Amino acid sequence: MRASELATEFPTVTLATPAVDAARQMAGNDLPGLIVLGQDESPFCVLPAAQVLRMAVPQYIQDDPALAGVIDEAAADTFIDNLGDHTVRELLPPPNSRELPTVTPDATLLEIAALMAQLRVPVVAVVDGNTMHGAITADALLDHVLGT
Amino acid sequence: MRASELATEFPTVTLATPAVDAARQMAGNDLPGLIVLGQDESPFCVLPAAQVLRMAVPQYIQDDPALAGVIDEAAADTFIDNLGDHTVRELLPPPNSRELPTVTPDATLLEIAALMAQLRVPVVAVVDGNTMHGAITADALLDHVLGT
Repeated sequence: MRASELATEFPTVTLATPAVDAARQMAGNDLPGLIVLGQDESPFCVLPAAQVLRMAVPQYIQDDPALAGVIDEAAADTFIDNLGDHTVRELLPPPNSRELPTVTPDATLLEIAALMAQLRVPVVAVVDGNTMHGAITADALLDHVLGT
Repeated sequence: MRASELATEFPTVTLATPAVDAARQMAGNDLPGLIVLGQDESPFCVLPAAQVLRMAVPQYIQDDPALAGVIDEAAADTFIDNLGDHTVRELLPPPNSRELPTVTPDATLLEIAALMAQLRVPVVAVVDGNTMHGAITADALLDHVLGT
């Protein structure tokens, strides 16, 4: 079994995608995030949902989440409006947590697992040159190696 | 909207659960991991799928994933057998990455979002005293606040 057989389509955004559109793509999709494509269209990093929340939750509340308790429930329900006109570029994780491992289409299951284990990431992109052929999540990999 | 209305059932394991059973529970479940319950049955940490792979992939290959390329494909397909008789206790993430935020059933959406944003985690447990009432994932939260 090689990466090419296990890769499935995975939602992607670009640096210019509006933040709110990225949030909509994430909502309820049960994936570890979206893959952000760089300017050359090659996969650049994973944008996890928690990162979108960082843009929407006011900084003073992130610094002290207990303060969120004093915001009334109606206002608390609409915090996502803070995404405003921001784009994915402004949502990117910090440089040291941008690792998006890539494997070639002929990588074996052990190569994929080794990368996920080493970098503690839940998804790898399958890339041939600059072209993304899909992605493989850790649970899809487990699903396959366990034959479940 | 409060945490109690958004909490859904979430798969849990105990420290004594066999590692291979935890892997089976994860396989293809499209969740950020399993919630590990401590000895008092209260939620203790999240066990992500990448952590299970760390137990199954030999250490020398994690140190240098390129070495995985020299293992033949048939052997690479069966690496999960290395889980052997290990238990969840041996799979736990390192202490500094065990954060499992918990919220009370009356937490607002903003409180939940603030915790996820601050700790960069994809799931929070909803807990009343020591009793877990379910969990909320970041994409379920986005789903709700966006009305998608």
